[in-house]
Amino acid sequence: MKLASLKSGRDGALIVVSADLKTATRVDSVAPTMQALLDDWDTLAPKLEIISAQLNAGECATAFALDMDALAAPLPRTYQYVDGACYISHIRRNRIARGDKLPDDILDAPLIYQGISHGYGAWNDPIRGQKEADLIDFEAEIAAITGDVPRGVSADEATGYIRLFCLLQDTSLRRLVAPELKRTFGFLTSKPESFLGPIAVTPDELGELWDGKMVSGKLKVHLRGELIGDLEAGIDSPFDYGHAIAHVAQTRAFVAGSILGLGTVSNEAADTDPSVGCGCIVEYRALEFIKTGTSKLEFMKSGDRVRIELFDRTGQSVMGAIDQVVA
Amino acid sequence: MKLASLKSGRDGALIVVSADLKTATRVDSVAPTMQALLDDWDTLAPKLEIISAQLNAGECATAFALDMDALAAPLPRTYQYVDGACYISHIRRNRIARGDKLPDDILDAPLIYQGISHGYGAWNDPIRGQKEADLIDFEAEIAAITGDVPRGVSADEATGYIRLFCLLQDTSLRRLVAPELKRTFGFLTSKPESFLGPIAVTPDELGELWDGKMVSGKLKVHLRGELIGDLEAGIDSPFDYGHAIAHVAQTRAFVAGSILGLGTVSNEAADTDPSVGCGCIVEYRALEFIKTGTSKLEFMKSGDRVRIELFDRTGQSVMGAIDQVVA
Repeated sequence: MKLASLKSGRDGALIVVSADLKTATRVDSVAPTMQALLDDWDTLAPKLEIISAQLNAGECATAFALDMDALAAPLPRTYQYVDGACYISHIRRNRIARGDKLPDDILDAPLIYQGISHGYGAWNDPIRGQKEADLIDFEAEIAAITGDVPRGVSADEATGYIRLFCLLQDTSLRRLVAPELKRTFGFLTSKPESFLGPIAVTPDELGELWDGKMVSGKLKVHLRGELIGDLEAGIDSPFDYGHAIAHVAQTRAFVAGSILGLGTVSNEAADTDPSVGCGCIVEYRALEFIKTGTSKLEFMKSGDRVRIELFDRTGQSVMGAIDQVVA
Repeated sequence: MKLASLKSGRDGALIVVSADLKTATRVDSVAPTMQALLDDWDTLAPKLEIISAQLNAGECATAFALDMDALAAPLPRTYQYVDGACYISHIRRNRIARGDKLPDDILDAPLIYQGISHGYGAWNDPIRGQKEADLIDFEAEIAAITGDVPRGVSADEATGYIRLFCLLQDTSLRRLVAPELKRTFGFLTSKPESFLGPIAVTPDELGELWDGKMVSGKLKVHLRGELIGDLEAGIDSPFDYGHAIAHVAQTRAFVAGSILGLGTVSNEAADTDPSVGCGCIVEYRALEFIKTGTSKLEFMKSGDRVRIELFDRTGQSVMGAIDQVVA
């Protein structure tokens, strides 16, 4: 099942979207918002699955042509966002480039911070109001949206609480990151806003791209029209979604609608294969620096565009794209 | 105006509470939940002010006797929680006791982290399911609940967006804090849940206790029935609520219902006056260690009780109490 939210009020209006992303139908009578659905998933999702099947069969009387521009973030505001730095090469390159080393305990437990959850932008909203001098960067991620997760859940059990996946772009102001992390209290002003891809999909909708632990597929990242990341999402993270959820849930339960990312998708192969690239600018620059001693890829400036999209093995877009400019 | 939420569903049912905390009335017809009120404050709050005046005058036909046990957290789940460490003596004592020093940049900007906002416990909910071996501690705080705050707001303007204040207890697992902060990504498993006091009050309701920048009053903290903190809330923080909001809002807007704390209330005078004490165990132990070379106050164990309450200059309780046991 594929879901999205039309722009409407603070929380959007829930719609079911066809598998080919061409048609949709409102489902107000079942659940007015994505949060309402997540709050009562076990009761409501089966009703939406029936509507989804009708829509995909061309048998939904209330279907309309999907206008991607009418979409808000699938979950415009929610109660928790925790984001990891689980793809180790992302951390390794960034730290080496600034003369640091990979922390000794990097494999002991996933590195995860509590981030901003109160206002996710739409897939095509501009990155607005940030200062170029703060070094505007994006991060290309695939996020899980969970139901209620009990405290103490195991990594194996944890993925059973994932309701949906969607793309996530975690805007980062690189000039502010190092001084903020130096104070040890985590990211705050340096991670000011995130954006979600237009379409949220249930794990079963991913088919072979979901093995119960990781989401696979080709994550393609274009910056200023050029392909700078051609990444395989399902590899190179020693911690899967289950590990990450279980780590956070050691001392807390999650409420429905929690969003969890594994961090910027990154592949080890980029060290040797220039066609792989990276899922954010700062890592790309780090890789340039490690290889050549200089960094050339520029941070984002007004008018610059970033596009992030996940493709399946047949080259089909799985969950729409994030495609934004800096305003 | 004083407000609270009856236990009901995930978000509670909004009630207006009388100034003396003795009576209340449901206000479903105006706003079913605290979040609904905060989402549309300018329109709805004036209607509730009229009901509040009627209630205080004994002229509210739907008034009932307030049962504190029926109360949830005023805002049981919300979209943002940012918490500071703004009372400097709290940081100073903790760092000195562990052989560290106060960071050089401590006065440059408030030290604030993004915390858990997705499930605030009620004032008398037990602290449940945490391990004693993780060293269970509380933190006594006064939190602001904001409306929508624009990005880039100044410190002077920022307090104009505070809608309510309430007590906050930020449960902390001290064994997990140091290793988590060492990884620089902030608190996560070490700050697993927070609890709010039963009653949220508008700034004007505080009278002389609110000077537009800080909340004053005596914050009394009892642990296992003994007074361990007798603190003046309105002093010893170089950063007020306006500074803290403005710091976070440099790069983000807040959505309505954001909760902001200045951290554990702490007074410089505790260094020399033993009657002052502290607002959490770890700082109390640090102060013991600095003075005597040993720490005697024990962390919380099963059955231990903590009570946190703010009193005005006449000795009246301002916003109810937090009073919990470890289960």
